Amino acid sequence: MEKNHVIRIKCPDQKGLIAGIAGILFKRGYNILVMKEYVETETGQFFARLEIAGELEPQELESELKYLLPPSAIVEIIPRNKKRIVLLVTKEYHCLGDLLVRHYFNELHAEILAVIGNHNMLQSFTEKFEIPFHYISHEGISKTAFEETILQTLETYQPDYLVLAKFMRILTPEFVQRYKDRIINIHHSFLPAFIGANPYKKAFERGVKLIGATAHIVNNDLDEGPIITQQIIPVKHDDGLTDMIEAGHEIEKSVLADALKLVLEDRIFVSGNKTIVFS
Amino acid sequence: MEKNHVIRIKCPDQKGLIAGIAGILFKRGYNILVMKEYVETETGQFFARLEIAGELEPQELESELKYLLPPSAIVEIIPRNKKRIVLLVTKEYHCLGDLLVRHYFNELHAEILAVIGNHNMLQSFTEKFEIPFHYISHEGISKTAFEETILQTLETYQPDYLVLAKFMRILTPEFVQRYKDRIINIHHSFLPAFIGANPYKKAFERGVKLIGATAHIVNNDLDEGPIITQQIIPVKHDDGLTDMIEAGHEIEKSVLADALKLVLEDRIFVSGNKTIVFS
Amino acid sequence: MEKNHVIRIKCPDQKGLIAGIAGILFKRGYNILVMKEYVETETGQFFARLEIAGELEPQELESELKYLLPPSAIVEIIPRNKKRIVLLVTKEYHCLGDLLVRHYFNELHAEILAVIGNHNMLQSFTEKFEIPFHYISHEGISKTAFEETILQTLETYQPDYLVLAKFMRILTPEFVQRYKDRIINIHHSFLPAFIGANPYKKAFERGVKLIGATAHIVNNDLDEGPIITQQIIPVKHDDGLTDMIEAGHEIEKSVLADALKLVLEDRIFVSGNKTIVFS
Amino acid sequence: MEKNHVIRIKCPDQKGLIAGIAGILFKRGYNILVMKEYVETETGQFFARLEIAGELEPQELESELKYLLPPSAIVEIIPRNKKRIVLLVTKEYHCLGDLLVRHYFNELHAEILAVIGNHNMLQSFTEKFEIPFHYISHEGISKTAFEETILQTLETYQPDYLVLAKFMRILTPEFVQRYKDRIINIHHSFLPAFIGANPYKKAFERGVKLIGATAHIVNNDLDEGPIITQQIIPVKHDDGLTDMIEAGHEIEKSVLADALKLVLEDRIFVSGNKTIVFS
Repeated sequence: MEKNHVIRIKCPDQKGLIAGIAGILFKRGYNILVMKEYVETETGQFFARLEIAGELEPQELESELKYLLPPSAIVEIIPRNKKRIVLLVTKEYHCLGDLLVRHYFNELHAEILAVIGNHNMLQSFTEKFEIPFHYISHEGISKTAFEETILQTLETYQPDYLVLAKFMRILTPEFVQRYKDRIINIHHSFLPAFIGANPYKKAFERGVKLIGATAHIVNNDLDEGPIITQQIIPVKHDDGLTDMIEAGHEIEKSVLADALKLVLEDRIFVSGNKTIVFS
Repeated sequence: MEKNHVIRIKCPDQKGLIAGIAGILFKRGYNILVMKEYVETETGQFFARLEIAGELEPQELESELKYLLPPSAIVEIIPRNKKRIVLLVTKEYHCLGDLLVRHYFNELHAEILAVIGNHNMLQSFTEKFEIPFHYISHEGISKTAFEETILQTLETYQPDYLVLAKFMRILTPEFVQRYKDRIINIHHSFLPAFIGANPYKKAFERGVKLIGATAHIVNNDLDEGPIITQQIIPVKHDDGLTDMIEAGHEIEKSVLADALKLVLEDRIFVSGNKTIVFS
Repeated sequence: MEKNHVIRIKCPDQKGLIAGIAGILFKRGYNILVMKEYVETETGQFFARLEIAGELEPQELESELKYLLPPSAIVEIIPRNKKRIVLLVTKEYHCLGDLLVRHYFNELHAEILAVIGNHNMLQSFTEKFEIPFHYISHEGISKTAFEETILQTLETYQPDYLVLAKFMRILTPEFVQRYKDRIINIHHSFLPAFIGANPYKKAFERGVKLIGATAHIVNNDLDEGPIITQQIIPVKHDDGLTDMIEAGHEIEKSVLADALKLVLEDRIFVSGNKTIVFS
Repeated sequence: MEKNHVIRIKCPDQKGLIAGIAGILFKRGYNILVMKEYVETETGQFFARLEIAGELEPQELESELKYLLPPSAIVEIIPRNKKRIVLLVTKEYHCLGDLLVRHYFNELHAEILAVIGNHNMLQSFTEKFEIPFHYISHEGISKTAFEETILQTLETYQPDYLVLAKFMRILTPEFVQRYKDRIINIHHSFLPAFIGANPYKKAFERGVKLIGATAHIVNNDLDEGPIITQQIIPVKHDDGLTDMIEAGHEIEKSVLADALKLVLEDRIFVSGNKTIVFS
């Protein structure tokens, strides 16, 4: 049986939501394969994600659900197609390599449309996989001009998500706003520890015994967006800065791959500065 | 708001179950705090666990749910009272100590009615916590007589669950049948590796780099019951057998405490030799 | 074979240290059971920890080693006796309970001489284990007077180490100086994230997906001392603040027990704001 | 300072070994960067691994060390060159992809000389990285002929190690003997659980809550060689067989990469069916 559609609902909580939603789907003869819901006490918001099998008339279903739900409800009915993504990179290869291999073997629930780099070091590697690489240097131009060039390039691809696979430039709020809740970043620390630049150096100097990596959605504040997933790896006193960076790379690529899978399967809701994860 | 009741449902899957169940609860004005469900593809069974707030008439609700559900459905409506448990121990103190401390400070969602030991080493420790300790030696009597004495002692307590907190005697199928799906054991290995006696010795001799602990429900076959939860801890070549046993104790008590929490909150369904865990 | 002594050496690195140290021990007929050493590149310091079997004349050996080593060398020759410790607590029982149970069953490589509490909630629990409990309230008196009373109480016990087992008062630099490098604290976060008060609340509000606990040596700055060990535990969006605190307690007691084992076996060197851990 | 050489010593333990070895190195003016040693109580064997800086005359040093050590001592003085390796694969890409990317970016402490596949599915992928791929089918020929063809191919490369990166054919003892202690395998389970074929299917049917992966040295018995490293990943009741296989792939590639790093840096000693790991 195919999992044809994902239904996502976000609205203020009220009694009878599950009964109402499930009732509509049952009446229409759809089979609910998976249904997960959550009420966030602090905000009173109801979140649900359903996987539905069977032929759907999305417009009709959406209308009927919206009729049932509070007026501010957001309803998404999403066919299980591959998402369209563009990767942004700088010089580090480990996340890019991991994603390109997964993509090549059809493991990623996404089509990688292109890679954009502010350095050209990863160009020939990317092109091995027949993915276009756009070298857009940030040097010698204003930040606005730099971002404008990226935005124009993105325009031609119309991606669903941008993935910052170790992209080491900070994006302006204006840029982020254009892809609100659609930019995924990997930060090389256990946020909120070691926000900002050189987290491994800071971790080394602090003498921590674990280092972390955090995948999050980018919002306007540096390294402050809603966290999707985090991992850690132990380090020892005899691990130098280089060892810590190497160890960190292992979890960075793993965390980014995990987070991306969740995003690409429409499992993440953003609520303020947090995520709801229907894994 | 109090979480007054847990509703548990197990039945063959069919379309409309969620809509039907949620509809009944809505009609009766109950608030669903949490609803989790799962359909096991291999067996076609539907499992659901709900937390409901509000005054309940359990008999009426059960009747109405059973009317809706397939005839073989099992419906449990369980008030959120503390469970009644009895611990069985031999000589090792670490799981017992952990549980008695949690119980003393009211952290355990259970009342520990008594501790039964086939040795008396842990008697004075147990009695510090004002818990009765029954010393029932297995020596010099038949297994049947041994178990009969235990059963009689249990009879006076009417426990909901038996917890084998490092109880080192194998129980007969007859005994197990009397407390079917209600005996929780901690096995000191990552099952199914190192089934049976001396798992640490076997692990040491095999040169493994991780050792594990497994909490499971006891059924008729030794160390073969449905697994509730498992943990591992790394070991190194310079860890001797004693080090591995010590390291193992740390995860044994942690795994047993985790599993017990799940059991005492009615979060575990048994399906054949597996568990469904609504955590 | 008994592990009779631990030898600890800290000095500026120079060529031939290992050959020299091992040569002295060999000449004297001592058997080196374990030898671990480390040179910290940043500071040029050499650290070594050896376990030696056999009868020792500590003064003679120390003299001979010091004659070999640079003048600033610190040499410790420590018999494998149990350390003497005093625990400081406030209201939370989980770390205290864990340590008292280990102590009762002779698992801890230390004698717990007394427990000091700035509340008296844990008094009757502590006394079950026949350990003296000193209730020294911080209320209605100056910080200086409060700490002076603690210091006087400690005077009667002459402990090797103080263990802050969820002691929720900040100690003054003067107090800390009196037990320099001999106060072990458990901080309920993954330091340096969430320094200071209410780390779980901060973690909850930040929406992290892992929470941590850190055992460290206390120095003058709040939560800034050299880290001994750290652990994390995953949390989910549906874990409320209470769930996170409960989950945190599990790793707090585990981290503190791990760190204490390392300290009590003389495995920790402090170097600036870091620890060298010869595990 | 360059880490020019690794010295590895294995011999029966006796008093004064460390003093003797360190003394020789000091006398010759070599700087010991790292020295780790271990005595295996069960066998009475002494193992040591040293990293030495400075110009070396290997023959002379080896002679001098052997003169000091018991006659059966094995002494290896190894320049820090890249090892030469050949990968063997079948159809699965995840371990191969991970290693080829690391190799391309010069992260692997080895030169991948060639990839041998008993299927040709991974040929074009391998060739993207300018690594020769040899398709040697096992079909239609005897096992002896199959292995003979592989051995002849290997002959032309003279590799230091063979890496079975999800190679799904069992090698004969004769083959293994030719590369004794030099074949690294990744087994897709937490050995010794689920030895042999279809470990994920067995794990799924057993209802485990963790799945594992094990990197080990291949000896004559299937999945029975000395374990180098192991990892686990949690699974849930709603993870189907496919989910478990996918989750397993993540740790398989991670475990293999970790193990290979240890092997390529000469950090592994084999002792009977165990490994000593100087990490």
